[in-house]
Amino acid sequence: MDLTDLASRLASGDRRALARAITLVESRRADHREAALALLADLARNGREALRIGLSGTPGVGKSTFIESFGLRLTGQGLKVAVLAVDPSSARSGGSILGDKTRMERLSRDPQAFIRPSPSQTHLGGVARRTREAVALCEAAGFDVILIETVGVGQSETVVAQLCDLFLLLLAPAGGDELQGVKRGIMEMADLILVNKADGDLKPAALRTVADYAGALRLLRRRPQDPEDFPKAMPVSALEEQGLADAWTEMQALVAWRRETGHFARRRAEQARHWFEEEVREGLLAVLSRPGPARERMARLGAAVTRGEITPEAAAAELLTTL
Amino acid sequence: MDLTDLASRLASGDRRALARAITLVESRRADHREAALALLADLARNGREALRIGLSGTPGVGKSTFIESFGLRLTGQGLKVAVLAVDPSSARSGGSILGDKTRMERLSRDPQAFIRPSPSQTHLGGVARRTREAVALCEAAGFDVILIETVGVGQSETVVAQLCDLFLLLLAPAGGDELQGVKRGIMEMADLILVNKADGDLKPAALRTVADYAGALRLLRRRPQDPEDFPKAMPVSALEEQGLADAWTEMQALVAWRRETGHFARRRAEQARHWFEEEVREGLLAVLSRPGPARERMARLGAAVTRGEITPEAAAAELLTTL
Repeated sequence: MDLTDLASRLASGDRRALARAITLVESRRADHREAALALLADLARNGREALRIGLSGTPGVGKSTFIESFGLRLTGQGLKVAVLAVDPSSARSGGSILGDKTRMERLSRDPQAFIRPSPSQTHLGGVARRTREAVALCEAAGFDVILIETVGVGQSETVVAQLCDLFLLLLAPAGGDELQGVKRGIMEMADLILVNKADGDLKPAALRTVADYAGALRLLRRRPQDPEDFPKAMPVSALEEQGLADAWTEMQALVAWRRETGHFARRRAEQARHWFEEEVREGLLAVLSRPGPARERMARLGAAVTRGEITPEAAAAELLTTL
Repeated sequence: MDLTDLASRLASGDRRALARAITLVESRRADHREAALALLADLARNGREALRIGLSGTPGVGKSTFIESFGLRLTGQGLKVAVLAVDPSSARSGGSILGDKTRMERLSRDPQAFIRPSPSQTHLGGVARRTREAVALCEAAGFDVILIETVGVGQSETVVAQLCDLFLLLLAPAGGDELQGVKRGIMEMADLILVNKADGDLKPAALRTVADYAGALRLLRRRPQDPEDFPKAMPVSALEEQGLADAWTEMQALVAWRRETGHFARRRAEQARHWFEEEVREGLLAVLSRPGPARERMARLGAAVTRGEITPEAAAAELLTTL
């Protein structure tokens, strides 16, 4: 593989080169990994920056429809839009979010757009690295906006929050009781809560839900880095394409504020440091899963622990001194 | 400190020696750690085994009253009872569960009982190790039953489930809606759901709640290691000391079954292996937090990542090759 050629085609915005580069960073082969690191280091020098938007919402709230409508609105303004997914659950279900591109038929055919389904992965660490590197590749390819989708399960929101500049939470209209179903931790990550399906019969319920969340958001501690009226809740209809322009205006206003106050750059710097530390931790632990003397010794000591011949603490101490 | 003396006094059931030994395993000093490991290895040879019972329940369900009533019932039968706590939240709140022994005044004055409050800890790994080692010390001191209490937050239940032979979930009487408030994962860990406060005005509600949970438990997949009617839900009143004898009978029946089927020993072996692997992981990562060249290099590279001079991946790769 000619890395220089791949890098230059990717930098010129070639979507096939981008897809190939993402496949490279997803590979677990050691030689691919080395090539991927060289490619990423090379492309990091081109200094392009996209707006990274995280999007979370449980199945059924209309995430695909939202991404399609919102994405087409942005490409209609001349922006290039990439869509990625963090889906740690796909390994179990066998499926993957975004896997069915037909759910976003128009956007996937748009030459200004790039959609990458989430491959199945066995652990969140692998998903995080893959997505982080795919984001870097999309930025280098000149995309203006990167949407990073996740399904509202477990810790995947935390991963996405560490990858994005803005975090959107997409919700369906709900009765007041269901409000409690949204975990406080996820509420606290959101910069903008969008209540979807504000159309037809559901419109009154959607507006009530917006008011409920607006009330709940006021109870959260204000974040010093944000203007006074953020985080906020708004109604949208992805289906009827209503409220999307307003939502985009709010996002741009928040980003402009954060850039001015320096928070935007500071957050990116902190995220980079976070990922560096995560990579180091995972790299250290990888010693234990790679075939070799460490893994063999661990298996032998583990068996002795299981048989009760040695305490877990003593066995761990013995293994660690030899590492 | 004379370790041989401490070990022999502890093995003879001296509660002050036990308390001192637990303080030793809680210490972060390197020489204390070494002594603690020697003590644990020494005592592991005495082969005593207690019944380890995990107990979870959110604040307000009456955990302290339950532990006092249940504990006194066991000591009344001539059993020696130790009470420990896993409380990862105490670092934040400043307090600690079990910290106020006056909540269990009678039990704390019982010469057959030993109560150890949870010290504040900054991470769950530290809490897990401390509790695991305290359990081993209580077993070596000849206690028959060890109650390991936790508050229903985050991952502390998972830690306790890996430490105990039986897991109890203590709940308050509730309306049907609140049933959903118990996370499915925690329900699945429970061997016995005890609905407390089945006394006075709340008794009808408690019985209804028991029926609700019994129904919910039937929907869970049956565990192959258990008799057909487990897990089960029962009403108790810690205040009026009702239902405690029945609950204890059920616990003993389940334990007898698990011993016969070999599951009891298998679970302990798996737990030991789990803790061995956790210890190895934490020990590896400790390299990064101990003062020394690794930590210095990590700080230097982290700063370079923050300034955008190097990508997180490249910095991690550089650090890992030198480790």
